[in-house]
Amino acid sequence: MTEVSLAGSNPLMMDTTAVKDGDDYVINGQKWYTSSADGASFAIVMAKTNPKAPPYLQASMIIVPCDTPGFNLVRNIPVMGHTGEGYFSHAEILYQNCRVPRKNLLGQEGHGFVIAQERLGPGRIHHCMRWIGICNRAFDLMCARARDRVISPDGRTLATKQIIQSWIAECAAEIQAARLMVLHAAWRIEQDGAKAARKEISLIKFKVANVMQMVLDHALQVHGGLGMTDDTILAFFFRHERAARIYDGADEMHKVSVAKQILRDYEGRQIK
Amino acid sequence: MTEVSLAGSNPLMMDTTAVKDGDDYVINGQKWYTSSADGASFAIVMAKTNPKAPPYLQASMIIVPCDTPGFNLVRNIPVMGHTGEGYFSHAEILYQNCRVPRKNLLGQEGHGFVIAQERLGPGRIHHCMRWIGICNRAFDLMCARARDRVISPDGRTLATKQIIQSWIAECAAEIQAARLMVLHAAWRIEQDGAKAARKEISLIKFKVANVMQMVLDHALQVHGGLGMTDDTILAFFFRHERAARIYDGADEMHKVSVAKQILRDYEGRQIK
Amino acid sequence: MTEVSLAGSNPLMMDTTAVKDGDDYVINGQKWYTSSADGASFAIVMAKTNPKAPPYLQASMIIVPCDTPGFNLVRNIPVMGHTGEGYFSHAEILYQNCRVPRKNLLGQEGHGFVIAQERLGPGRIHHCMRWIGICNRAFDLMCARARDRVISPDGRTLATKQIIQSWIAECAAEIQAARLMVLHAAWRIEQDGAKAARKEISLIKFKVANVMQMVLDHALQVHGGLGMTDDTILAFFFRHERAARIYDGADEMHKVSVAKQILRDYEGRQIK
Amino acid sequence: MTEVSLAGSNPLMMDTTAVKDGDDYVINGQKWYTSSADGASFAIVMAKTNPKAPPYLQASMIIVPCDTPGFNLVRNIPVMGHTGEGYFSHAEILYQNCRVPRKNLLGQEGHGFVIAQERLGPGRIHHCMRWIGICNRAFDLMCARARDRVISPDGRTLATKQIIQSWIAECAAEIQAARLMVLHAAWRIEQDGAKAARKEISLIKFKVANVMQMVLDHALQVHGGLGMTDDTILAFFFRHERAARIYDGADEMHKVSVAKQILRDYEGRQIK
Repeated sequence: MTEVSLAGSNPLMMDTTAVKDGDDYVINGQKWYTSSADGASFAIVMAKTNPKAPPYLQASMIIVPCDTPGFNLVRNIPVMGHTGEGYFSHAEILYQNCRVPRKNLLGQEGHGFVIAQERLGPGRIHHCMRWIGICNRAFDLMCARARDRVISPDGRTLATKQIIQSWIAECAAEIQAARLMVLHAAWRIEQDGAKAARKEISLIKFKVANVMQMVLDHALQVHGGLGMTDDTILAFFFRHERAARIYDGADEMHKVSVAKQILRDYEGRQIK
Repeated sequence: MTEVSLAGSNPLMMDTTAVKDGDDYVINGQKWYTSSADGASFAIVMAKTNPKAPPYLQASMIIVPCDTPGFNLVRNIPVMGHTGEGYFSHAEILYQNCRVPRKNLLGQEGHGFVIAQERLGPGRIHHCMRWIGICNRAFDLMCARARDRVISPDGRTLATKQIIQSWIAECAAEIQAARLMVLHAAWRIEQDGAKAARKEISLIKFKVANVMQMVLDHALQVHGGLGMTDDTILAFFFRHERAARIYDGADEMHKVSVAKQILRDYEGRQIK
Repeated sequence: MTEVSLAGSNPLMMDTTAVKDGDDYVINGQKWYTSSADGASFAIVMAKTNPKAPPYLQASMIIVPCDTPGFNLVRNIPVMGHTGEGYFSHAEILYQNCRVPRKNLLGQEGHGFVIAQERLGPGRIHHCMRWIGICNRAFDLMCARARDRVISPDGRTLATKQIIQSWIAECAAEIQAARLMVLHAAWRIEQDGAKAARKEISLIKFKVANVMQMVLDHALQVHGGLGMTDDTILAFFFRHERAARIYDGADEMHKVSVAKQILRDYEGRQIK
Repeated sequence: MTEVSLAGSNPLMMDTTAVKDGDDYVINGQKWYTSSADGASFAIVMAKTNPKAPPYLQASMIIVPCDTPGFNLVRNIPVMGHTGEGYFSHAEILYQNCRVPRKNLLGQEGHGFVIAQERLGPGRIHHCMRWIGICNRAFDLMCARARDRVISPDGRTLATKQIIQSWIAECAAEIQAARLMVLHAAWRIEQDGAKAARKEISLIKFKVANVMQMVLDHALQVHGGLGMTDDTILAFFFRHERAARIYDGADEMHKVSVAKQILRDYEGRQIK
């Protein structure tokens, strides 16, 4: 069980605290988007343990059994029309003087962000890979629909129309771009490690998410009224994969981060 | 009960037939997206009565009581994750030798498209007006969220960020454009009638639908993870209003129609 | 002769100074983009006279005869491939201890920005009106070219192609949007004055400039190789009107300004 | 000397003819955009020699010495404000009963398009490589300008602004996409030959040209008024590289071609 939304957070903005009291931590705070909390045995909470440490060393990850007093699952949050349950749910949790033994600490105290970053680098490229799968699926459906949809009595199909053709070509170009960029980022991670590949990972995080949204939008449009129904997978993708531009760091966060890395490389360089 | 998807159809592609037999019509065919059929007393079917007439005079509208033998409501179609029921549903109907008296004809035989067009002109501008309301609502939510969302310990909010500011300005410009174009189209309808205002109606049909999608996308993004939940109205709008670019004529159909009208005006004109 | 680029400037960044010395001002500084200086009798310089006043009351406008010692026209600046001369030129001017009598002051001392703003409000909408004229001219050329350009031996023209048709429709929608927004801004200026219409003027400044660039780009593309030549006016517009998104305040400056005005209106408002 | 504009032409639309007469060809027709004709010793003309052959086997390439009677250089065509001369010119040529010996035929009769295609495949990827160089140059200039341009008295630069940062990140992503796609296309040409890589070549032809235009537009905007001048290379690139989306096949031609190739792959495939 993880809290997907913490990724892009400013650590200074974290409200949840875990205060040491004897052999325990006493946890207070409200958490949102705790994935799969419903039905889980335990949660991992990110909470401030060292408020005076440098920003990225203030928080820790702590295991909290879900039957601990003070662990309150307020509700499963409805997302895009569905509340979900069990594994496919996102809970709002209220920690109220929730007391757990200090041995429940994961890793070192203050290393919550260190652990999160270790997971997030590979996590992000994994998302991108999955999104390319979704792009390919949607592209297949779009092409097959264009091929099959007869729009005039002489048998002409959507595929004969230039507007549809230009979408197919533009989607093909963007999917190709996304695919090669992900392969390249994976190669960099393999060569130099996730930390060295930070820029490449940020680039694909926002680029591939946006390619996917564009491809899904065109594929849905080619399906017309059918695209709005759940008779194809497209409407599901359209609404749920919208989150891709938000979780694990919103587009804007990654763009600003990429730009700052790039601009550092220009310090002191003579450009003509 | 209406079938929203027929609007943009090529009349030559209509499969459903109503064949005269004595004092009755015998109706056969499959209809999709029959809105609010679930629980209705009667449906209005559009069916081919005059297959040899000119294209737009081949079909008629006929009232069919829902308890008529051969009127089969196959299912309510799931749309964007929800099947809906009653008024908020879209049914798939199978007409199998469904026999109704000829007096159930609406208007004149062969005038199905004539009746539909009379409704669609005003219907389209009504949609556009509603979409502008949605734009305004989403814009309000976006601005309020930008104003309220604190992103650093010194109290700075999203509203202080240039990326968010540029979205607010771009959305403001596009909503203003949409609003003025709808007012202008309404004025033309009032002056010269819906037929003379065909170009203006087509322009707003695709322009306003796209402005709405853009505004909703930005508003959702400004809300981050919250935007994906149903705690605001934005996620509902995001998924359901996607249909705006499809129903009552897809964007592409209106663009081609506008272009053909414009190009006719250039016939024989000397341009320097 | 005016310096078009001062408009968007942060007044605190102005380097040119006019220091009082007896009955004179002694002017020092470098000015760039002084339009039509070549061949002019006098220039109007914007220079800091009151460096301790509030930012927008630090500068004054002063008349400088071009034959004053210390008024050095360094060069006419080459713009988009042409240096121009006379009225159609933009000069770089170096003021070196350039001494003019204090009676050459325009208006009140420290009112340089006040005077500039009075000119810029109406100046901006005038630009927008001119740009709509350019849009219409380019649109005419695009439609006529689409109509006339035969692309297959059976006589079919570019106008029969959906890609071209969709461009025509999209350009028509955007030109209509631009036109109505300019009319609306003009009406607001008339009703309430240029100051009250600041938001409307900023909106059209960036919206219309971008519409123009989009229309010119499509019109040029429809002309193919011919579009690159000076056999039509399009190539001239394409390169010179690119400045529209820069002069009298860059797009980004206007967007930030609009957003701040809008966000002020949301202070303290309850939004649901 | 080549005629760059012939590439995307429908061979059926070619007007220039070369008719055999004894041991000669007699050439008639008008040619446009004959690069570097001004000052050249000979031209290579593409002319119809076999009007009854299949479309792509109707034309031949023939060497024409420029001093042949009937070879008339009408003018150098002004392109984006400059007529150019010598190597940097594009001529309009009028062939009037221009007689050259049959041994001036290049390759086989009717193989004009075959020869052109052999040059165009590699020619296109060569253009793309050059454009990536231009992208990198413009990107460098943009970043350096953002870094150096102070916009407030406390020394803050354009580089601190989110709008500029998001442009830098978006340009970085697109240049990366363009670069990897060109490398991939080059690898495919090496592996399987230019013919097998037709789709990849078309994809990069339009993708990289559009990336370049986007990068140049942003780089120019970051330079403000300076971007419009010829004090940087950007204004030159902005106006001249606009041709990239036109020569060697317009964007639209390549998109339609890519889509048709892709759609062929879906014939008979079952997609779920």
